[in-house]
Amino acid sequence: MYQTVVRYINDQNMLKPGARVLVGVSGGADSMALLHILQQRCMDNGGVLWAAHLNHSLRSQAGQDEQLVRDTCRRWDIPCYTKTVDVAAVAARTKRSLEEAGRDCRYQFFRELADELGADHIATAHHQNDQAESVLLHLLRGSGIRGLQGMQPVKGKLIRPLLCVTRQDIERYVQEHQLPFCQDLTNHDPAFVRNRIRLHLIPYLQEAFNPRIVEALNRLAAIAQEENAALDEMADRQWPLLSSWVEGTLELDADRLREEPAALQSRLILRALVEVSHQSDWSRDDLLKVRELLSKPGSNLILQLADDVRVGKVYHKLVFTQDLTDSPSFCYPVTVPGQVYIRELGMNYSLAIVPAQEWQPAPDTIALDLDRLASPLCLRSRQAGDRLRPLGFKGRKSLKKYFMEQKIPARQRNRIVLLAAGEEIYAVMGFMVTQPAVVTDSTRRILVIKARPDAKAT
Amino acid sequence: MYQTVVRYINDQNMLKPGARVLVGVSGGADSMALLHILQQRCMDNGGVLWAAHLNHSLRSQAGQDEQLVRDTCRRWDIPCYTKTVDVAAVAARTKRSLEEAGRDCRYQFFRELADELGADHIATAHHQNDQAESVLLHLLRGSGIRGLQGMQPVKGKLIRPLLCVTRQDIERYVQEHQLPFCQDLTNHDPAFVRNRIRLHLIPYLQEAFNPRIVEALNRLAAIAQEENAALDEMADRQWPLLSSWVEGTLELDADRLREEPAALQSRLILRALVEVSHQSDWSRDDLLKVRELLSKPGSNLILQLADDVRVGKVYHKLVFTQDLTDSPSFCYPVTVPGQVYIRELGMNYSLAIVPAQEWQPAPDTIALDLDRLASPLCLRSRQAGDRLRPLGFKGRKSLKKYFMEQKIPARQRNRIVLLAAGEEIYAVMGFMVTQPAVVTDSTRRILVIKARPDAKAT
Repeated sequence: MYQTVVRYINDQNMLKPGARVLVGVSGGADSMALLHILQQRCMDNGGVLWAAHLNHSLRSQAGQDEQLVRDTCRRWDIPCYTKTVDVAAVAARTKRSLEEAGRDCRYQFFRELADELGADHIATAHHQNDQAESVLLHLLRGSGIRGLQGMQPVKGKLIRPLLCVTRQDIERYVQEHQLPFCQDLTNHDPAFVRNRIRLHLIPYLQEAFNPRIVEALNRLAAIAQEENAALDEMADRQWPLLSSWVEGTLELDADRLREEPAALQSRLILRALVEVSHQSDWSRDDLLKVRELLSKPGSNLILQLADDVRVGKVYHKLVFTQDLTDSPSFCYPVTVPGQVYIRELGMNYSLAIVPAQEWQPAPDTIALDLDRLASPLCLRSRQAGDRLRPLGFKGRKSLKKYFMEQKIPARQRNRIVLLAAGEEIYAVMGFMVTQPAVVTDSTRRILVIKARPDAKAT
Repeated sequence: MYQTVVRYINDQNMLKPGARVLVGVSGGADSMALLHILQQRCMDNGGVLWAAHLNHSLRSQAGQDEQLVRDTCRRWDIPCYTKTVDVAAVAARTKRSLEEAGRDCRYQFFRELADELGADHIATAHHQNDQAESVLLHLLRGSGIRGLQGMQPVKGKLIRPLLCVTRQDIERYVQEHQLPFCQDLTNHDPAFVRNRIRLHLIPYLQEAFNPRIVEALNRLAAIAQEENAALDEMADRQWPLLSSWVEGTLELDADRLREEPAALQSRLILRALVEVSHQSDWSRDDLLKVRELLSKPGSNLILQLADDVRVGKVYHKLVFTQDLTDSPSFCYPVTVPGQVYIRELGMNYSLAIVPAQEWQPAPDTIALDLDRLASPLCLRSRQAGDRLRPLGFKGRKSLKKYFMEQKIPARQRNRIVLLAAGEEIYAVMGFMVTQPAVVTDSTRRILVIKARPDAKAT
């Protein structure tokens, strides 16, 4: 298997000589095999390797898994970084499934750590069986071609060197090399859709329809990736020829758009919707509505979509705008200690000072290092150009990008409260404290902010 | 439902006013509903309607189904054409499943009849549940995006006006209008893959994963159709710019091909393979081999594929040729009565004259109207430019096209024996007797040709 994976790494141009790779390691057979293979490969190529393990705090066994990863990395001489996140709490707070929340936390940890370490790549251990599951998962949810792509072998920093082998190949490898690994019992919980696909659907399809279904789905994913890339390339080529920004509205040349094949129209319209709304999850129904508008005769037709996006046909233009005038915009000065009532949201914020040695974390509160904050402080809604410094991230990130990563719909973004002084943002309430305000070992006085809905307003 | 279907017919531009439509009618609820809707629609639009029913001779009930269709058409005043084919025998002879053989016989009958009647369209009663089944069927067999298209609402002469409604919609319609219909019991036979999909897989997916899976799969098919059409359009645009025929070999400009996205490379290469071989079922592995050849440095590399197709890289060209030099080519003069031994195939043909009233069909024989044949007769292999007049087809069809329709691989085509006199082909042995030689009520003397393998040669 080692040779197969190395050939795949080369064919897909995954790693340059001397590449610096952070490997996501759960402790399961797949990721232990990946770590083992990449270590040999890096030794051959003068590269650098780190391991990263996120403890999801989901199972009693989680501590043992972390220990196994730590111990193995120590023996193999690979620096290992671990972090513990209460994924169940994140899932509850963000109203996502445990699967989704776990994945988001994991990738966020990997990305931040990779930035900090200066890693060129993040490697994960997904293999052909995972890929087949992903394709079916998307298919069953009602995906288009895009979803059928499954996971790509290379996507930005992410690489997946094991996408060329099956679970069986990996199990054989782990046995041959007597690698230590832990059993992930959540893999058998049928409450997770992916597990039902793995444990029931795929075996049934293999038996009743096609014993080589895993191979077939991997081939489909590879084809979908190529077809999708070709259409994206076409769209990229056309975009500058038929789009333009005019004072905050995005205009597409309707005549030229009409001449393109339907699939390309959809891609170009989707791109316009995303650019205007900073939102990516537009539905096929939305696309079809805009396409219908495009094909209808007559001008001055207007279509109202979600997130206050409006699409109008004005002469030979399709005009995309987002109207956020009815979203709240606010800015309240803060005194510490003190209370602030944000009328627009009906929320009360109380600010208290607590000596570091007395502080205890509590729900619905955030804690900051008071002595590192500038003044005057305020609690406000976002402003154009807001940027922040997340923990573990080099430099500043735009708040808009952060909101997109957190999957916060555009119309909710004005309802999120920021603690700031001038241009420096210290906290995104309900989400995070930034690098300049984070509590450390040397913190003496802690600013504790507690949020609660105001009875009058609810 | 009537309004939904009529809107779909209009949206998809299926029928012009006055269109002449042949409707395929099995007698099941779906096709009876289609016939009923199209009749109303044609009355509104000055069109012409015919019904066609193929009796597959598969079930004891088949005769009743035919009678039901005939009776209903008489009452509704729709001209009805029926034909009986021994589908089981065709399946055995052509080594196909009953499903495939049945479908092929059906479409062949519909097409020939449509040509004879001068119909503009052939309408079939496929609906959204059929479409979902088709998508899954292709997916499970390991299709690419092309297969996920499922059935298209309009494809050449074929139209499918019910692809906008579900089986439930149709059942409700049939009940409301009290339409007669027959139960097709073969729909419940789990030996057919499609039935297993309908009866087991889809209900399981609905229950365990997504109650709206039929809708999701139909959306996927619609997206796949659009994406596929866009890529085909790109390929059509590029084809004349980078391909040329030079003395029987097809050349592609390798440098320009290399600049195209991978998905487009595949389509252009596939097209070259099809054009050279007159064969459409090339695999993804074949495509990947040619793409690898394309990306390899160096000239004078040669790849040998199936059907004697060879792909070579010569300087900046990718050269496609088909070498059929080792295929047999023969021509034997025929005397009647008499015997002919075809050495190239190791086959004996005996030709006898039988008075029409004494003639009985027998296996491995064909029967022709001797008095309508020109002379000198010969048994020969195909020649460039061969054309024939199939029964029920206006004018002549190229033999190459006939072979493609019958799905005969290119390398077998030279092994098929033709009975001909000059340019006129009277029989494709093992397949059919043509219009000019077919036995009719007025035939007096029948030429019976019997084929058997020669013991020496086997």
